Amino acid sequence: MADTMLAVVKGAAQAGADIRDVPVPAFGPTDVLVKVKVASVCGTDLHIYNWDPWAQNRIKPPLIPGHEFCGHVAAVGSEVTTVKEGDFVSAEMHVNCGKCYQCRTGEAHICQNVKVIGVDSDGAFAEYVKIPESNIWKLDPGIPPEYASILDPLGNAVHTVLAGDIAAKSVAVVGCGPIGLFSIAVARACGATQVFALETNDHRRKLAKEMQADFALNPKTDDVHGTVMDNTNGVGVDVMLEMSGHPDGFRLGIEILRLGGRASLLGIPSKPFEFDWNDVIFKGVTVQGIYGRRMYQTWYQMEALLKAGKLDLSPVITDRISMKDFSRGMDRLKTGEASKILLYPNGIK
Amino acid sequence: MADTMLAVVKGAAQAGADIRDVPVPAFGPTDVLVKVKVASVCGTDLHIYNWDPWAQNRIKPPLIPGHEFCGHVAAVGSEVTTVKEGDFVSAEMHVNCGKCYQCRTGEAHICQNVKVIGVDSDGAFAEYVKIPESNIWKLDPGIPPEYASILDPLGNAVHTVLAGDIAAKSVAVVGCGPIGLFSIAVARACGATQVFALETNDHRRKLAKEMQADFALNPKTDDVHGTVMDNTNGVGVDVMLEMSGHPDGFRLGIEILRLGGRASLLGIPSKPFEFDWNDVIFKGVTVQGIYGRRMYQTWYQMEALLKAGKLDLSPVITDRISMKDFSRGMDRLKTGEASKILLYPNGIK
Amino acid sequence: MADTMLAVVKGAAQAGADIRDVPVPAFGPTDVLVKVKVASVCGTDLHIYNWDPWAQNRIKPPLIPGHEFCGHVAAVGSEVTTVKEGDFVSAEMHVNCGKCYQCRTGEAHICQNVKVIGVDSDGAFAEYVKIPESNIWKLDPGIPPEYASILDPLGNAVHTVLAGDIAAKSVAVVGCGPIGLFSIAVARACGATQVFALETNDHRRKLAKEMQADFALNPKTDDVHGTVMDNTNGVGVDVMLEMSGHPDGFRLGIEILRLGGRASLLGIPSKPFEFDWNDVIFKGVTVQGIYGRRMYQTWYQMEALLKAGKLDLSPVITDRISMKDFSRGMDRLKTGEASKILLYPNGIK
Amino acid sequence: MADTMLAVVKGAAQAGADIRDVPVPAFGPTDVLVKVKVASVCGTDLHIYNWDPWAQNRIKPPLIPGHEFCGHVAAVGSEVTTVKEGDFVSAEMHVNCGKCYQCRTGEAHICQNVKVIGVDSDGAFAEYVKIPESNIWKLDPGIPPEYASILDPLGNAVHTVLAGDIAAKSVAVVGCGPIGLFSIAVARACGATQVFALETNDHRRKLAKEMQADFALNPKTDDVHGTVMDNTNGVGVDVMLEMSGHPDGFRLGIEILRLGGRASLLGIPSKPFEFDWNDVIFKGVTVQGIYGRRMYQTWYQMEALLKAGKLDLSPVITDRISMKDFSRGMDRLKTGEASKILLYPNGIK
Repeated sequence: MADTMLAVVKGAAQAGADIRDVPVPAFGPTDVLVKVKVASVCGTDLHIYNWDPWAQNRIKPPLIPGHEFCGHVAAVGSEVTTVKEGDFVSAEMHVNCGKCYQCRTGEAHICQNVKVIGVDSDGAFAEYVKIPESNIWKLDPGIPPEYASILDPLGNAVHTVLAGDIAAKSVAVVGCGPIGLFSIAVARACGATQVFALETNDHRRKLAKEMQADFALNPKTDDVHGTVMDNTNGVGVDVMLEMSGHPDGFRLGIEILRLGGRASLLGIPSKPFEFDWNDVIFKGVTVQGIYGRRMYQTWYQMEALLKAGKLDLSPVITDRISMKDFSRGMDRLKTGEASKILLYPNGIK
Repeated sequence: MADTMLAVVKGAAQAGADIRDVPVPAFGPTDVLVKVKVASVCGTDLHIYNWDPWAQNRIKPPLIPGHEFCGHVAAVGSEVTTVKEGDFVSAEMHVNCGKCYQCRTGEAHICQNVKVIGVDSDGAFAEYVKIPESNIWKLDPGIPPEYASILDPLGNAVHTVLAGDIAAKSVAVVGCGPIGLFSIAVARACGATQVFALETNDHRRKLAKEMQADFALNPKTDDVHGTVMDNTNGVGVDVMLEMSGHPDGFRLGIEILRLGGRASLLGIPSKPFEFDWNDVIFKGVTVQGIYGRRMYQTWYQMEALLKAGKLDLSPVITDRISMKDFSRGMDRLKTGEASKILLYPNGIK
Repeated sequence: MADTMLAVVKGAAQAGADIRDVPVPAFGPTDVLVKVKVASVCGTDLHIYNWDPWAQNRIKPPLIPGHEFCGHVAAVGSEVTTVKEGDFVSAEMHVNCGKCYQCRTGEAHICQNVKVIGVDSDGAFAEYVKIPESNIWKLDPGIPPEYASILDPLGNAVHTVLAGDIAAKSVAVVGCGPIGLFSIAVARACGATQVFALETNDHRRKLAKEMQADFALNPKTDDVHGTVMDNTNGVGVDVMLEMSGHPDGFRLGIEILRLGGRASLLGIPSKPFEFDWNDVIFKGVTVQGIYGRRMYQTWYQMEALLKAGKLDLSPVITDRISMKDFSRGMDRLKTGEASKILLYPNGIK
Repeated sequence: MADTMLAVVKGAAQAGADIRDVPVPAFGPTDVLVKVKVASVCGTDLHIYNWDPWAQNRIKPPLIPGHEFCGHVAAVGSEVTTVKEGDFVSAEMHVNCGKCYQCRTGEAHICQNVKVIGVDSDGAFAEYVKIPESNIWKLDPGIPPEYASILDPLGNAVHTVLAGDIAAKSVAVVGCGPIGLFSIAVARACGATQVFALETNDHRRKLAKEMQADFALNPKTDDVHGTVMDNTNGVGVDVMLEMSGHPDGFRLGIEILRLGGRASLLGIPSKPFEFDWNDVIFKGVTVQGIYGRRMYQTWYQMEALLKAGKLDLSPVITDRISMKDFSRGMDRLKTGEASKILLYPNGIK
């Protein structure tokens, strides 16, 4: 192994990022060093690249971004026992403290002191990445390798869909970015009997149909309320998964939700907005904030669904590029015509 | 029984109400006619009296208001089998359709076609009131008679408190009107280990202390956030019960709620307001809209708690007046110094 | 409509049954008279036919058995509003009292005073059957008509499978009679990722494979424990559905269940048997007794799954015969080579 | 600190135990050494002392028993950060592996590889005991010190009572050893509205009354079924907590449980026994196996209840003796007139 490696580096507090030669990460006795095979790009990475207000507030350059990946173990610390060199792995990139109330009561995904690799410390847009053993997920050979780098966002979808009953339920997916699209597949695999996908972007709506949503509607031009009511005996959908973070999407989602329905929110609004809470109160609705992936319930669920061949995620993977073309990937994302982009730090194979 | 009776009548689409002689209600084969012993006053009745925008939109005069009461069965329809003349009863005043999706799946409290006696049809501010047999609740002799007319709002409190785990939990009650005050008693009786009552009105805050809240704080002058964090190891409260309907109360309640906590909303905001949903999403909070009482789970719970002597509600009952003094009762409510007012249509005994 | 009809009649307290001419049922103002199109045969009907100890204890001849059916409304009572002549319907045959604790708290399927049509009163092995309006289920046109008579046992399967989480879970189905076979289909449709079917009868095991169980094992000859552990990383199955009522099946099911797993029991043991409760206690297992169908949650779930085309139940329907050949159907059941038998009281169409 | 200490030692595979001088435990970098203030005696310790079949199968002498204790930190390993010398602590004595499916999904209390200090390794009947930091529970100053050594069995009670809804429920506690007695207090504190204690031992039944059970019945002489039905409107109890491990207790508990009730089993039967599962199936009952304490949910719940002063456990503590009188304590337990015995290894203060 060389001492240096190529990495995407956010070097300064401004828009953009460079490809640079940097030292291979040093690792301690409980760490695992992984040679990255694929690292995929998340909307968060675009926020960091664009240096938007969220990024300005959270990110401390220099930083190697990237929190979705898979690869082979290159080396292990002296106390590591559960994986060995050569193992094919991914990882949960939310590193929890293990000592707060939430960590000690089975809610580690909302740890009070969570740190995110690729956001708060160097991540996976590099030839190598360092991960604590506790967070490594050894990949079952039955998992399709082309999905191995996207378990983080797939896990968001699994967490959101399975945060309540879904079998024999009708579902609205509001917003069809990659996680929204994954949610369609997960909901169908877990017994959802009707899926209404809501999305204004034509390309994403087309992907929603490929993911086998029963309806892919454009809230700007289609009669969403009428279509939902016509197809649910006037009752509304049982479950609403908010994946857009958009005030209009949120309000429409609550509007088409049935009395007593579930609204699970993953999409992050960019700022506060007005809402009529009476729509929640009089309807007896339950609204859940969803963050990250349950550690590690969600990972086991994901593994089981993938091994059983229940999920066809291929339409979501629209681009495969070499890591050195990172900036081109960012441009593709901005067009709205790319969904999930796979980066190859060590060459496309 | 006479043909006519005294009643409070909202006779016209304007503020105020009259005491009038009206016909005793005719009743059908499945109805029960009850001679009202006590009818208590709810904030809703004040909305109707004041003829505010909500009332203008919902109420169709002439109407006898009043949806909290107890009394003795005066007569029963030919098909009634579960109660007989002389029985001491109260009633669930939300009349559900029995045929919609919610009614057929155990969620009758959010029936699509609910009608409320005292709001949508003549209610209990009268010497007699007519109730369908299905909605009559025969009172167990073990229930303190002085609480028999306030089961409707007590049921709101029981429904809200028991909408999730409460044993061994810390709780914030935001807003200390009668239902908020009842919630303090119910939470304590069901194992809540810390109760923080938040209320700006001095009189209500005093009542909150009498209900044995551990802390009765004024959000305008006290350091609510600091007090909560100091007393919860910096974690925040497990449960937040929103009883004020006020935007500031709601936002403060979410602020002091722990990651993964429960927020149960019963208070009705008068209009939409701005809110930062990220406080729900990143905290992994569950927000529940609560309406009415579970039919009839809540009633069984209430009966059990009252029979066991677990609830001392006496501080909340501040006024006892004859029904003919109804307008004086409305004036008392406006002062903010009355909490629950009991009306006696057939004389105070 | 004629005054008399053909029916299967259990005329005396002894084995057997006759086909007889009997009066068409009289019906009251809240009843629906249905012309039976298909009535299917349940193991209970065989118990009644064979006059076994259970039947001797429960059945009061004369009785028309049969509690699985579909047909068209022939006439309605004067107060019936939700169906009309000609509608295609099935029915929940457990008639609940509506007044007991369970009925009033959303648990009508375990009503204290339940009466079963076809067991406690005349049933559907006849040209016509009388059903209270409350129990009629109007069939959505999207439901495959060939499945319309088997909603009762399919509902048992749906109730059992969905009595806890099933998505992304491994499942053992112990006993592959019709309800066990249906459970395989329901579990797979609702996201179960591995299904182990356990059954000693060769014919039923073959059907289990046709229902797409991942494994169809014979506990008498196959290494069930080893196969389960090899395929679950040594953990055991998440869920065990007991459909056999056999002590050995039950004990084996608990043995292969993981720590913290769910065991849902529908199969009815013929008598008490020995069991080591430590296998439940130390493993932290939850055991659920399952009876009937949730009223009417299970029916909505079933309708949604069938409409969405999620269930292929065709392998289970092995025989279609005219009602007059009822005794031949009983003989077929005894061979162990028939699974679900459809009877046609009004001719096979 | 001396090199040696006094301890109760099970020295050989036979009945009895000695008080001996043994080395103070060596401890590693992640361990905590505690000077034991109080160690209390559990039925398990009596099994070990008597060398019954369970003990013969599980225990590998020499062993220092004892798994209930409190004390002050005497020394900490080099990597310990959460406690320091002098802190007053207790501990969860079930040491989980952290790597199995159950540990990684919030079910550490049923870890596949659990080891119990005081059973599988040296315990707390000694002047000092060694505990891994992860299992130390630092005691809140608000917890009554006299209860600090009995958190293990109190935790069993809290785990069992709170394994389902308890507020506004009627409860039968079957068996009134210390955990059964604690369960009465916990159930009442958490809103149970009726508690029926069932126990054949007169002394324990008297303690059950002191713990404020509403009824303390002797199944051998009292009409338990009649009393329960008379006091529950003929419905039966909502919850049954099995604390006796006795077949008759278990069967009676199921008999008096209402349709749809919860049975939570903590008592350990000494061998398999006959049971009619139809009593579970037709009644739609849920039976839960309960083991240990939820890590660490149960500990937080216990702490909250104790700090709030919700639990008066004093009647259960019947004996306080010096550790050197251990054998006398065993004799007291055998009389059936001692409930919880506190041992003082370092002198009674």
